[in-house]
Amino acid sequence: MALIVQKYGGTSVANVDRIKNVAARVKAHWQQGNKMVVVVSARSGVTNELIARAKALHSTPEEREMDMLLAIGEQETIALLSMALHAIGVPACSRTGAQAGIHTDTLHTRARIARVTGGDIPARLDEGKVVIVAGFQGISAQHEITTLGRGGSDLTAIAVAAAIRADLCQIYTDVDGVYTADPRIVVNARKLPVIAYDEMLELASSCSKVMQARSVEFAQKYNVPFEVRSSFNDKPGTLVKANAKTMEDAVVSGVALDRSQMRVTVSDIPDDAAAVAAIFNALGEAGLSVDMIIKNLGTQGRSNLTLSVSSDQFSYAEKVINTVIGKLGSGAVRATGEFAKLSIVGVGMISHPGVAGTLFNALASIGVNCDLITTSEIKIAVAVAPAKADEAVRAVHEAFRLHDIVPIG
Amino acid sequence: MALIVQKYGGTSVANVDRIKNVAARVKAHWQQGNKMVVVVSARSGVTNELIARAKALHSTPEEREMDMLLAIGEQETIALLSMALHAIGVPACSRTGAQAGIHTDTLHTRARIARVTGGDIPARLDEGKVVIVAGFQGISAQHEITTLGRGGSDLTAIAVAAAIRADLCQIYTDVDGVYTADPRIVVNARKLPVIAYDEMLELASSCSKVMQARSVEFAQKYNVPFEVRSSFNDKPGTLVKANAKTMEDAVVSGVALDRSQMRVTVSDIPDDAAAVAAIFNALGEAGLSVDMIIKNLGTQGRSNLTLSVSSDQFSYAEKVINTVIGKLGSGAVRATGEFAKLSIVGVGMISHPGVAGTLFNALASIGVNCDLITTSEIKIAVAVAPAKADEAVRAVHEAFRLHDIVPIG
Repeated sequence: MALIVQKYGGTSVANVDRIKNVAARVKAHWQQGNKMVVVVSARSGVTNELIARAKALHSTPEEREMDMLLAIGEQETIALLSMALHAIGVPACSRTGAQAGIHTDTLHTRARIARVTGGDIPARLDEGKVVIVAGFQGISAQHEITTLGRGGSDLTAIAVAAAIRADLCQIYTDVDGVYTADPRIVVNARKLPVIAYDEMLELASSCSKVMQARSVEFAQKYNVPFEVRSSFNDKPGTLVKANAKTMEDAVVSGVALDRSQMRVTVSDIPDDAAAVAAIFNALGEAGLSVDMIIKNLGTQGRSNLTLSVSSDQFSYAEKVINTVIGKLGSGAVRATGEFAKLSIVGVGMISHPGVAGTLFNALASIGVNCDLITTSEIKIAVAVAPAKADEAVRAVHEAFRLHDIVPIG
Repeated sequence: MALIVQKYGGTSVANVDRIKNVAARVKAHWQQGNKMVVVVSARSGVTNELIARAKALHSTPEEREMDMLLAIGEQETIALLSMALHAIGVPACSRTGAQAGIHTDTLHTRARIARVTGGDIPARLDEGKVVIVAGFQGISAQHEITTLGRGGSDLTAIAVAAAIRADLCQIYTDVDGVYTADPRIVVNARKLPVIAYDEMLELASSCSKVMQARSVEFAQKYNVPFEVRSSFNDKPGTLVKANAKTMEDAVVSGVALDRSQMRVTVSDIPDDAAAVAAIFNALGEAGLSVDMIIKNLGTQGRSNLTLSVSSDQFSYAEKVINTVIGKLGSGAVRATGEFAKLSIVGVGMISHPGVAGTLFNALASIGVNCDLITTSEIKIAVAVAPAKADEAVRAVHEAFRLHDIVPIG
């Protein structure tokens, strides 16, 4: 007898048969007496089709019109899932983002949620209805349809769960939880039964496959526990919540790997804070996230900056930095090699010195050298050569004995 | 320098190339200094695809959810056309039915327009923008998405034209106007430059290919002149307006043909008005339109009723009538033969006796007999054998010299 918000991604509702599967799964929960809200994405492929049609008409379509266009993907799914539920005897009704009271700012294609009222969802739940909500979309104060950008449907689910004070929010996806490492790299990687928001955030920023950081941040801000699980089986997933101290000795929860990072060197810039600030301000305004930053003093009052960006964003970053260099009057920017970023994450690291030692010993044991290093209270990230990346992940996973993790709770 | 509402149907915006064509056409009008509102349908095929998907999930999908689903077709087109206009340098913005202030009742899938505010259309027009409005859809007082049913986009165009007091409403379609007869039957049929609402209504109810009666009725009620024309050429179409007395001697404006009508005989029912009323009330409530009604007194206080329905609606009509017969305690219903309905229409008929004589002479000259006959002030309709229908249309067209029509204005 719980109030549950479930979210199903595009692959889970890709076609009529999969929509029927989701309906059956929702029915099972509903029949147990739970109040059910279901957030869905567009059928997989639909968004890309719409984008292709838009691009055939305009190389850079206006963002407001893109939102008008893309929002139809989720609107299709909510109607279809509602029909599928009716067909198996479950009362259901669909709600667009606007109807569900997802109010956003006006940043089209990447709107931020301003407030979520939930609209009439509680009233419909009290009538025994399953309420199907369109993910990814909202409405601005100007009554314009907005979309939330990448990972928007997860965000919708967590925001709705917060608004209606759901007992549980389940994010159904094509992975069945968060692992100690990518199982394709580490054969004995284990699914984590529970992790903390902070750990999930570090994993999300290192490896965005499971979930975008913004959704985790939102969940953390409003203290919404959520479970990441698979829509293709019934296995429990990973619960993400505030305090996840359930592993006795688990100092490190997982190892993440980001391939295709580019090392960027900006050389010969003035050695003052204003110059560095100008570069990072420009990158931030361009929406480019950088990390692993090192600043070296050069000669004659000049300095060099090394930072990392995703390889696919390098060209854009180069352009942005060159604009700043033009204003500074000196400097040069160049790519200085691709690398992979290996991160270890764990809330237990704060109180355990020696974690860094274990990490570097493991890397040294397989002959991996690393220069770029960044640390936070719950993460250490290092740059490793792409060719050695998988081997490094296995060595680190082994060194921290992550395959031995035993859930306590 | 006029305020023009244009409506483009599904075939006119079927794909990216056709959307570009529409954009070019709109631009040409806009460049002449006109204020432009463009109403569009879903791309042809889209609505059928969505219906097929819905039917795969539920044999009789809930109507509210069908509206939620079908409304996305037009929402796609408005965004794409807006982008196509941007690409050729025309400022444009799209508006959903709700945003355009198309307020309807709650009869989902066949909603009726309650009021049209036009939303912010006038303000956007004053900024020089072309406003693209989603046809076919509206919003109910409960903030639910509704659709207007068949011919809904035409209705949207005319309703918006009325709301914003447009100078002209142009309905672009795949026919290029209203003809004196179907040009596929009568080689020398002529396009009518102008006809009256009443004539268009009679033609629309006889032959719904050009336009649904409800749109014409709405135009008549709010006195919105509109032009029916082709989106595939630049020829003038047919102007439909209140007083269309522009043809000097044109008593009859056109000949229409409805194929596939079914003669239905209801025999042995009580000979009283209540019995007849019960049958027509039931048919009306079922949404079945019947005409060409004849009542004959039978024997022993019983009577027979002959009426016509579309052949494809016969099974449904039979079911409805049988229910009434059950309640009446006697009677039988059966199909008594397919026929074609030939109608002649013209506002000039009121003041011209002898029109019926010319009609029956023409039919007699080719050996066509007709028994079911209905008349209104501006129409005479007769039932003819399907095999002789085309020949009958040609003979009648010739008898009224419709190929000689010369526009005055």
